[in-house]
Amino acid sequence: MLNLRTLRTADADFEAEFKRVLHWSAETDAAIETRVAEILADVRQRGDAAVLAYTARFDGLQAGSMAELELTREELKAAFDGLPEAQSHALTQAAERVRRYHERQKKACGESWSYHDEDGTLLGQKVTPLDRVGIYVPGGKAAYPSSVLMNAIPAQVAGVPEIVMVVPTPRGEKNPLVLAAAYVAGVHRAFTVGGAQAVAALAYGTATVPRVDKITGPGNAYVASAKKHVFGQVGIDMIAGPSEILVLADGTTPPDWVAMDLFSQAEHDELAQSILLCPDADYIAQVRSSIERLLPDMPRRDVIRASLEGRGALIHTRSMDEACEISNRIAPEHLEVSSNEPHRWEPLLRHAGAIFLGAFTSESLGDYCAGPNHVLPTSGTARFSSPLGVYDFQKRSSLIEVSEAGAQVLGPIAATLAYGEGLQAHAQAAEFRLKR
Amino acid sequence: MLNLRTLRTADADFEAEFKRVLHWSAETDAAIETRVAEILADVRQRGDAAVLAYTARFDGLQAGSMAELELTREELKAAFDGLPEAQSHALTQAAERVRRYHERQKKACGESWSYHDEDGTLLGQKVTPLDRVGIYVPGGKAAYPSSVLMNAIPAQVAGVPEIVMVVPTPRGEKNPLVLAAAYVAGVHRAFTVGGAQAVAALAYGTATVPRVDKITGPGNAYVASAKKHVFGQVGIDMIAGPSEILVLADGTTPPDWVAMDLFSQAEHDELAQSILLCPDADYIAQVRSSIERLLPDMPRRDVIRASLEGRGALIHTRSMDEACEISNRIAPEHLEVSSNEPHRWEPLLRHAGAIFLGAFTSESLGDYCAGPNHVLPTSGTARFSSPLGVYDFQKRSSLIEVSEAGAQVLGPIAATLAYGEGLQAHAQAAEFRLKR
Repeated sequence: MLNLRTLRTADADFEAEFKRVLHWSAETDAAIETRVAEILADVRQRGDAAVLAYTARFDGLQAGSMAELELTREELKAAFDGLPEAQSHALTQAAERVRRYHERQKKACGESWSYHDEDGTLLGQKVTPLDRVGIYVPGGKAAYPSSVLMNAIPAQVAGVPEIVMVVPTPRGEKNPLVLAAAYVAGVHRAFTVGGAQAVAALAYGTATVPRVDKITGPGNAYVASAKKHVFGQVGIDMIAGPSEILVLADGTTPPDWVAMDLFSQAEHDELAQSILLCPDADYIAQVRSSIERLLPDMPRRDVIRASLEGRGALIHTRSMDEACEISNRIAPEHLEVSSNEPHRWEPLLRHAGAIFLGAFTSESLGDYCAGPNHVLPTSGTARFSSPLGVYDFQKRSSLIEVSEAGAQVLGPIAATLAYGEGLQAHAQAAEFRLKR
Repeated sequence: MLNLRTLRTADADFEAEFKRVLHWSAETDAAIETRVAEILADVRQRGDAAVLAYTARFDGLQAGSMAELELTREELKAAFDGLPEAQSHALTQAAERVRRYHERQKKACGESWSYHDEDGTLLGQKVTPLDRVGIYVPGGKAAYPSSVLMNAIPAQVAGVPEIVMVVPTPRGEKNPLVLAAAYVAGVHRAFTVGGAQAVAALAYGTATVPRVDKITGPGNAYVASAKKHVFGQVGIDMIAGPSEILVLADGTTPPDWVAMDLFSQAEHDELAQSILLCPDADYIAQVRSSIERLLPDMPRRDVIRASLEGRGALIHTRSMDEACEISNRIAPEHLEVSSNEPHRWEPLLRHAGAIFLGAFTSESLGDYCAGPNHVLPTSGTARFSSPLGVYDFQKRSSLIEVSEAGAQVLGPIAATLAYGEGLQAHAQAAEFRLKR
């Protein structure tokens, strides 16, 4: 018997129960923070020597020099060449689809633009790629080759000339799919280091590891803390929390499909969250039966059970409209609109990392190969942040070229405001450009 | 006699001198961090009562309730109506130009997009405004009405339904230009609170101050530390360092103009940085004479002198090309290309917050009214970040609608990769969508 809670929005205690389900604390452990600060300072000071020492200590990987920890392009290619045909084909296909989507994204929102105003003044923005970025790829259990594609390809499409990957290889165990993904995605350099020491090496640079301008990619609590610490020195992407799926169902999708979609989030780890929102009590009961029937056969059933019991919920709503409102309050990372009229509900959905429309769009298709990025804002941060994209590997510079005529129009406005703020040099710089 | 250093790139000690000039530590004070953490926790716990207590203590402003600290729309309008005609005109004109530019920006890079692939699968991104944002406006000496426009207008153009401004008013002294700017920029609610307590109120919400999704705007060390602390809970913009200008000159602009442009950065504060890069030693000497002649008449000459002597530099380069390279290493906040052929050099400039092209484009015109935003990345962060813009008040959600035909193509790819990662539920969710 699975102890998966059902909530009803019509119940008096719904608000309290709902808050309990959503509660997740991103508070960082003070002991971790202190340890990370020490590691960062040490790598900043001692460079390669410190990185080597921590790699020996934390990953059980001894090396005489950092050069020994660099993966050559040949080694990456060999990993790809050694894959079974089905895997190398799937990897190449996925990479190709992800690349095509991100090329569209660049075209839609990543190109320079400018115009002239009525005084002949040029205004615009120049969009340029970052010079060098670092991609953190977790090792061990959570070593996902798909994440290599999802981080490296947008950087490559943005035009970043140098993409540096770091991936810990505890006791030297390399994941061939991860190495092959790095080859397919066009990673330029790769080092088998991880943890806060790898983040420090990328942020400050060492004799061997080049300093990057931005670090992206998920990691454990040490990596997250290190990224937050070096933010400002370099750019970072978001700090990832546990993964979540919200399925908004109107009862028209086969219940087994929805059950498996809820599993596919729950199998990540025990803190992952799977929630179903549905106005149809009978359908919720069918999904529950599917869950109970399918669960025993899942290889990762223990993780799935712990996740569903600890953080999952089936929520019976008064209507689909109400379900959409609740979805907006949650601002989920993954949002499946499992409905035969998904475009009726999509306009009501304001906050989500990715929206999967219709019964055929399982989250897993999006996770691997539909094209959009699978690095998405978690823990409600979709209220204010976006999927990883080409835009994360570009930056903008404003362009302004004031014509002589424009300077006569703008000068008096600027000077008036500058005097109002007590900034006389600003005012005079504008006045110097006026015709006497 | 002004003790403003000259560097020559041809000199043997150039690299060392150059590093010394650029050195600026963003390290935060541990005592401030601790104090800020306490204030944040207290406001989170006690809400309005804590905000009132800190406002009384730090700003010398007593109030019986938070409602007393809210500025009404009528009060903002009255401030605008009470301005001298020249000021209200300048404010309105500046706002109008800033709005027009940001509307172009939204059109260029802030609209939803989608397409269908060859299998009929819909892919795209939906762009939506944030629900509610908070704008921090410094009080006292550095109360800049132009910053109100530059923060609020992009949010308004993005379509944010609720813009909440906080501005400390030490001892209750209100700056009428700041209030008027809030009126012109369309701020929805405004509170006369500041410091870490204001950031906390916006991030967590209190009975009176609504919780926002993102906080933007500059502030002192307490505000910067508070913003960094609440990052994740809410979005934040960049953490601002001292303001900087870099002038790249080929010797064709009147030297007085360049001198005044250097002053206009130096007058902000003693840590502000003004640097001239030029391949023409005679011209550098002319600019130095202009500086010495013009400085005594500047009302803020003491601040300008301290800034120029402490952090300024005139750098004699071998060529304009070399000047461009050095500019890229600095990645300045403001970059003036003071040349009669600015478009020759612009393509070589990869990193800068804003690029001002040609002799007529003084930075001050851009600061107030050319149109582009004056909130720009400082301290070299233009290597990876961008001017504040409409995009900071929007977020993106990926859209995916896989057709039945698409699911047949994508399913096997996703399943192969998912099995490779040991995620069987992901694989089966894809396989369930395959025709049997």
